Amino acid sequence: MLNHAERDRCCVVLVRARNSSNIGAAARAMRDFGFAHLRVVNEFTPPFEGARSAVDAADVLAAAKIYPTVAEAVADCTLVVGTTAVGERNLQHHLLELPAAAACMELALGDPAQPTPRIALLFGSEKTGLSNQELSFCHWLLTIPMHQIAGERHVSMNLGQAIAVCLYELVRDTNPERESPQPGIAAGAAADSAALERITALMNRVLEATEYTRRHAANGEPAQVRRLVRRIGVDAVDAPIWMGILRQILWKLGEPYTDEQHVD
Amino acid sequence: MLNHAERDRCCVVLVRARNSSNIGAAARAMRDFGFAHLRVVNEFTPPFEGARSAVDAADVLAAAKIYPTVAEAVADCTLVVGTTAVGERNLQHHLLELPAAAACMELALGDPAQPTPRIALLFGSEKTGLSNQELSFCHWLLTIPMHQIAGERHVSMNLGQAIAVCLYELVRDTNPERESPQPGIAAGAAADSAALERITALMNRVLEATEYTRRHAANGEPAQVRRLVRRIGVDAVDAPIWMGILRQILWKLGEPYTDEQHVD
Repeated sequence: MLNHAERDRCCVVLVRARNSSNIGAAARAMRDFGFAHLRVVNEFTPPFEGARSAVDAADVLAAAKIYPTVAEAVADCTLVVGTTAVGERNLQHHLLELPAAAACMELALGDPAQPTPRIALLFGSEKTGLSNQELSFCHWLLTIPMHQIAGERHVSMNLGQAIAVCLYELVRDTNPERESPQPGIAAGAAADSAALERITALMNRVLEATEYTRRHAANGEPAQVRRLVRRIGVDAVDAPIWMGILRQILWKLGEPYTDEQHVD
Repeated sequence: MLNHAERDRCCVVLVRARNSSNIGAAARAMRDFGFAHLRVVNEFTPPFEGARSAVDAADVLAAAKIYPTVAEAVADCTLVVGTTAVGERNLQHHLLELPAAAACMELALGDPAQPTPRIALLFGSEKTGLSNQELSFCHWLLTIPMHQIAGERHVSMNLGQAIAVCLYELVRDTNPERESPQPGIAAGAAADSAALERITALMNRVLEATEYTRRHAANGEPAQVRRLVRRIGVDAVDAPIWMGILRQILWKLGEPYTDEQHVD
């Protein structure tokens, strides 16, 4: 996971971007994941006009730099990584899948032998990708692992989506704190056993009051009901709500509940 | 990492998709990462016309189903996960960051207690996200961790990019084979020491023939040159090319090289 200073040493280089929406999509993904340096390689003035309206990415676009050649765009970079969909082209570079590539880029940025590392991540035009000449400026290449359908021609990703996925991987926390293993079981802090037991007692009363216990004796046994209540996983906030609902049912049935009626 | 059968038990649900390009972007990301089931919730006939031209995603779009309500779209799903950018809205759900969420979804699909698990992943409209009413159908929510700038209002991702990032995470190989720790050092198989030594010998001859050794005695020592050659990391394919280049320099200098001239 690149920290803020490391992200500041990465630049995204769009080579022959064909339209402003792609430039805007690149800028937006960069803004979302905290990357500031956009470089655009174009022989003519790139179509920034439309892109400048890209939502929330005005800062990235305003700071974008335009270069006439790949050589000039990557001149100050110590590591140049090209992206490819690995089509028919005969690759003459070492190729890494995105997760491994991101790990290598992080290593390169933390290399103590390199006082001012700077990484360029190159993306070609959506239609043709990077040319062999453009790829020759790269130290190695990365590819996003995609689903291949046997017999179908190879496809490449949408440019904006590919950039988002690459930048996401670069800032992805590889050691997240352990989360609750069973989200959905309890939305907040779990209710304590005393609360579950009060709900169980109310449920038992409801089952009796509605004659469920008489009609389904096996399901109505107290231990059965206790397990039933535990399985639904009520959290601490919801527990009093459930108790209120059950009390209300009992009230409507004409059998208001008092805490003395606890059943076991 | 979801396998093919598990991906087939996931559906992407777009709620109130506002335009065809978003539907097309969703379909394209699904196709790229191997997901087939697209569901669209719209009160009116959604704008599929434009989306049907989405590159390479014709199969996904052709199989897409339209539902009038979220309830109907997720009726057959055993786990419903909502996506949110965690804006101002007061969330009343358990919230997981994407990597943990993907791990939980994988667990849910592999739960032996659930014979036919099916997951719905809900995305709201780009403008408003999912409403509280729509979120109430979800067991829990996921969010893509983004870069927050202090004092700036919270932004959400482009819908197509968010879908691509989520699906990428679901199929991301969490245990990739270990790659070469130093890509770029050698693009292919590393050259063996004998080859490096032949290059070293040629380099020594070039340094002598060009009088570099005389002018920079310290740099020209054989052991120094040997280390210099090792540091550039020539691979097995490139080694003979470098030898040819050095031989050619010597030939041009009028000092053609023979293998007997090995220096140490």
